[in-house]
Amino acid sequence: MSKPMTFGSDNHAGIVPEVLAAIAEANEGHASGYGADLWTQQAEALLEMTFGDAAFALCLTGTGSNVVALSLALRGWESVLAAKGAHIDLDEAGAPEHITGSKIETIATPDGRLTPELLTAALRAREQHHVVQRVVSITQSTECGTAYTPAAVQAIADWAHAHDMLLHVDGARLCNAAATNGCGLGEVAPGADLISFGLTKNGAMGAEVVVAINPSLRAPIQNARKQATQLQSKMRFVAAQVTALLTDDRWLAHATHANAMALRLADGIRDVPGVSIIHPVEANAVFTVLPAERIVALSEQHHFYIWDASTNVARLMTAWDTTPADVDALISAIAN
Amino acid sequence: MSKPMTFGSDNHAGIVPEVLAAIAEANEGHASGYGADLWTQQAEALLEMTFGDAAFALCLTGTGSNVVALSLALRGWESVLAAKGAHIDLDEAGAPEHITGSKIETIATPDGRLTPELLTAALRAREQHHVVQRVVSITQSTECGTAYTPAAVQAIADWAHAHDMLLHVDGARLCNAAATNGCGLGEVAPGADLISFGLTKNGAMGAEVVVAINPSLRAPIQNARKQATQLQSKMRFVAAQVTALLTDDRWLAHATHANAMALRLADGIRDVPGVSIIHPVEANAVFTVLPAERIVALSEQHHFYIWDASTNVARLMTAWDTTPADVDALISAIAN
Amino acid sequence: MSKPMTFGSDNHAGIVPEVLAAIAEANEGHASGYGADLWTQQAEALLEMTFGDAAFALCLTGTGSNVVALSLALRGWESVLAAKGAHIDLDEAGAPEHITGSKIETIATPDGRLTPELLTAALRAREQHHVVQRVVSITQSTECGTAYTPAAVQAIADWAHAHDMLLHVDGARLCNAAATNGCGLGEVAPGADLISFGLTKNGAMGAEVVVAINPSLRAPIQNARKQATQLQSKMRFVAAQVTALLTDDRWLAHATHANAMALRLADGIRDVPGVSIIHPVEANAVFTVLPAERIVALSEQHHFYIWDASTNVARLMTAWDTTPADVDALISAIAN
Amino acid sequence: MSKPMTFGSDNHAGIVPEVLAAIAEANEGHASGYGADLWTQQAEALLEMTFGDAAFALCLTGTGSNVVALSLALRGWESVLAAKGAHIDLDEAGAPEHITGSKIETIATPDGRLTPELLTAALRAREQHHVVQRVVSITQSTECGTAYTPAAVQAIADWAHAHDMLLHVDGARLCNAAATNGCGLGEVAPGADLISFGLTKNGAMGAEVVVAINPSLRAPIQNARKQATQLQSKMRFVAAQVTALLTDDRWLAHATHANAMALRLADGIRDVPGVSIIHPVEANAVFTVLPAERIVALSEQHHFYIWDASTNVARLMTAWDTTPADVDALISAIAN
Repeated sequence: MSKPMTFGSDNHAGIVPEVLAAIAEANEGHASGYGADLWTQQAEALLEMTFGDAAFALCLTGTGSNVVALSLALRGWESVLAAKGAHIDLDEAGAPEHITGSKIETIATPDGRLTPELLTAALRAREQHHVVQRVVSITQSTECGTAYTPAAVQAIADWAHAHDMLLHVDGARLCNAAATNGCGLGEVAPGADLISFGLTKNGAMGAEVVVAINPSLRAPIQNARKQATQLQSKMRFVAAQVTALLTDDRWLAHATHANAMALRLADGIRDVPGVSIIHPVEANAVFTVLPAERIVALSEQHHFYIWDASTNVARLMTAWDTTPADVDALISAIAN
Repeated sequence: MSKPMTFGSDNHAGIVPEVLAAIAEANEGHASGYGADLWTQQAEALLEMTFGDAAFALCLTGTGSNVVALSLALRGWESVLAAKGAHIDLDEAGAPEHITGSKIETIATPDGRLTPELLTAALRAREQHHVVQRVVSITQSTECGTAYTPAAVQAIADWAHAHDMLLHVDGARLCNAAATNGCGLGEVAPGADLISFGLTKNGAMGAEVVVAINPSLRAPIQNARKQATQLQSKMRFVAAQVTALLTDDRWLAHATHANAMALRLADGIRDVPGVSIIHPVEANAVFTVLPAERIVALSEQHHFYIWDASTNVARLMTAWDTTPADVDALISAIAN
Repeated sequence: MSKPMTFGSDNHAGIVPEVLAAIAEANEGHASGYGADLWTQQAEALLEMTFGDAAFALCLTGTGSNVVALSLALRGWESVLAAKGAHIDLDEAGAPEHITGSKIETIATPDGRLTPELLTAALRAREQHHVVQRVVSITQSTECGTAYTPAAVQAIADWAHAHDMLLHVDGARLCNAAATNGCGLGEVAPGADLISFGLTKNGAMGAEVVVAINPSLRAPIQNARKQATQLQSKMRFVAAQVTALLTDDRWLAHATHANAMALRLADGIRDVPGVSIIHPVEANAVFTVLPAERIVALSEQHHFYIWDASTNVARLMTAWDTTPADVDALISAIAN
Repeated sequence: MSKPMTFGSDNHAGIVPEVLAAIAEANEGHASGYGADLWTQQAEALLEMTFGDAAFALCLTGTGSNVVALSLALRGWESVLAAKGAHIDLDEAGAPEHITGSKIETIATPDGRLTPELLTAALRAREQHHVVQRVVSITQSTECGTAYTPAAVQAIADWAHAHDMLLHVDGARLCNAAATNGCGLGEVAPGADLISFGLTKNGAMGAEVVVAINPSLRAPIQNARKQATQLQSKMRFVAAQVTALLTDDRWLAHATHANAMALRLADGIRDVPGVSIIHPVEANAVFTVLPAERIVALSEQHHFYIWDASTNVARLMTAWDTTPADVDALISAIAN
């Protein structure tokens, strides 16, 4: 029942073999539920080696881990500043606002990246009629396929802290950002108070981790996870996925590969007439104008999303299992 | 890293082999995310054969599926009537109230089962100072290891509908209830408007289904699932689990076995001095008084929960993989 | 302890004498609480004469009546479309999102007024990742001191209904809009499903009314009001205010006067060098650029808000008790 | 349109003359809104003299001030322990749970009063499946017409603090409790972290105050008030009510009088055959069994509530304006 390789989303890809094997290996005998098992201990030890001292909560969905993270930081009358088009604003059916009870305020950006300057322009006086701006949330890598440098993240963290705010990083594709920046997962979001660290798009079946770095936010992490419906009973099977991908830098191999496929694709179509790549290609997505008369046919044949029909912009997304041949076939189709 | 078989919870058991195989089989090539795949189609077709015409939403956790189901039925100023000790009241960290915004009112029961008489005693006038009692939620089988007969469920459904209310069934162990009653999954909760149908405790890795039977409640089921953070991106791997367990009545074999192990255990200890089984054994749990001087040692050796230390009541729980030898070993330990 | 007349806000004005007298007259003997009194009956009869068949709920604050109205229309996964800068978005500390659990999406406007064209541009496909756009909320008259014509409101209502949405009108200054349009309160928001009708800015001490016109939204209005904390126990004193202002078209006299004072002010400064009125003056506010070197001194002397310090825009607001002499004094100050 | 004096509720009474006069006096000229006025300054100065150093927020309804207070103390996954039948549990249409997002757990009491022993019996282990018990909420004087001694309140405060919890006091009738105990308002709830201090039942038109004593809870009090829809724009008229009642110990005179009327009533009927007063009369309510064959006729004639029709219990409530003649008339009616 499988389909051919697609460029629709990195979650169209399946499970990397090592993860599937790890799930199977964990499936022996009984283990206590809800995280009181050895697999969870092992995963948390690896997470601590990766991110340093922090509280961790294994979760099931990206929306779930964003909600858990934000709920640790927010009171009902506080708000989040995020880029317009951020996943938490647009693609989570209102879950963050609904479950945290807090408002999300959006800021238009050229390429998905916030800056201290953009944030400063969105500052409002703190008074009783307004929500209190409390959290800056950035996506690393962004929904536009760009990535922040560690220095850029640190600058935003500094800005946030200077304004009595906290920094949350939606890291559904943190691996891709680290691969691009040539640094570790623990170095690609410096200054962050909270990270939603995703492994599903990196090849897991479904494994996300809330990383609570700021000590003042850690205590209620397990209650917040349970209340957000994200506590898996047979936790060892989530933990095994995390361990499999953090072992031997597998996460890095998958992300590096996906990123390389996106760059190969971008390089292959960059000079085709009618093609215009609109954002720097710094992760595993290419946002590009395609020829108006052919974009629909191409999207149907190669299974990608038309991001903005009015401007003929497509999103071409690669994954851990995209092959050079897949890419070259798409290049050929676009070029002809 | 596995532990010996335990009597702690049916979620201490792992994944049944057919489910693991189904996950592996689904892991080929690309598939669209979020349910737009053939595996989900197949699972929903089986669900429709099982439950009849309804809207279905595959979910990840039991708390999640309860929240999604309840959110379809409730406005903020409405309430749920449930048995004291119901999972939604006690063991979900307040998720149902927090996410639906609605109150849960509890009613003390002798054995986890509500009745029309108990519900009638809890009725309040509908006026502006009070929440509007809108949903009756029962657990089938119950948190006490008892099961409603279909006639008993129908009586509660009739009561609910006669009082302008809806019936929700928390079916985390619906399979066990159906096995006990000798009927199909579609017949064990007659009159229900909403069912949270669980397969995790039946041997899935993590698969739960919201079944919206009442046509007036169906439309927003997908939005409610997404907002409750329960939408898995790689949905085919959840769907494959559902299909594996609904095929060839595997769910029934697992539930029948687990129930039989509980009965074997109950029969084996019933006459032991100092033992007093406190609820009818109608599913896969035995609630029993154990000798005060030995309960702690037994619980440590056989990994079960002391349910109420003040009365020396233990919960002994069986699963799809509990063996007669496991049971007999526990019987021996208790008897000596 | 009173201050001189100000141009800061129409809620800097006090209580019109007839309202205060009505409160005093109602203060005799005992009356049942929570609306079961003759004063509330009388107020509701007048409201029905004004707005036609509807359900009414007397409230205490504008934010409260907006929240109650919106909560009647929204489920958690649905959203509101509103003009950027709308009171519900900017000036209610997140109450609408927090209490309804729903998202507010904002649309930039030139002068506070939405149009079918602007709304169409903000439409999104209805799918599970997005909130379901359910309510259009407009402010009549707007936060920019402009007013919709009844035809413009009807066009938005028609657009909303054609797109399976509902129309909410924030009528904190509905009286001013009706006075400008030369029509009744029941004719100035045609097609609306819900109106938050404000009398506080018209001269009440604190009296707002939720008007639920759409029959499908009416039933839970009292529960929604109580849950939003807006149910006054000694309701007769709120009702008496409503009755006082709806009697003898007093609301119209006050609104007409305030509007006239704003127009007198606008006409008086329109040609002053350095002055540039930025929105049509259609209610009781004048938004105007003032000379950069004098705006701060003027604001301190005449008690008005500098709306945007970067562009030297001031908001000059009139009320039921603003006198021609007050206005002329301000004109003089600006002109010199 | 007034009715005869009733024994239905202390909110059936009107406004005490000094409060109405204070509202009228405050109605001169313009004043800044939302609390930035001299009347609010004056009220807050009196509140500080009364309660000591604290943050204050003037509110409009009792439900509103309870919600604001609780929202300062609670995160979504935390809970409140309260007496069964507490106003926050039964009579606020779910507002506290809905707006704070937190659960209320109730404890049965003999007479509306919690004790450290009752609280200890309701303690649960803090773990991820459960809500975290964070706030104890008591009502002073209680919904049963009883009052805690200051020592009893202090004992509960000590218990709460020893268990990492906070104490909230619903003081809708704090004045009656202080009058009974012969102490000041600042001494009748010792150890409380938060008080919802009500003046409406003492003779205000509508004035309630959140008193945030615990310094760690104070900072967001204004935002929490605004978000709970409790911020009055023309605040001076709320503040004037507070000042009027706190001046010259008027609150004490009214409460003392109402309490005395209740005691006169209780003493007058205590020995009547068929009468059985079921709670100590320590505030302004008498809960009593009345003769079954006459309770309905009496309730209609003297306008009181039948509290429990199955046991013929009536609630007879006095107010600041109940006269000895009113009381004697009721005594006569009951006695004959």
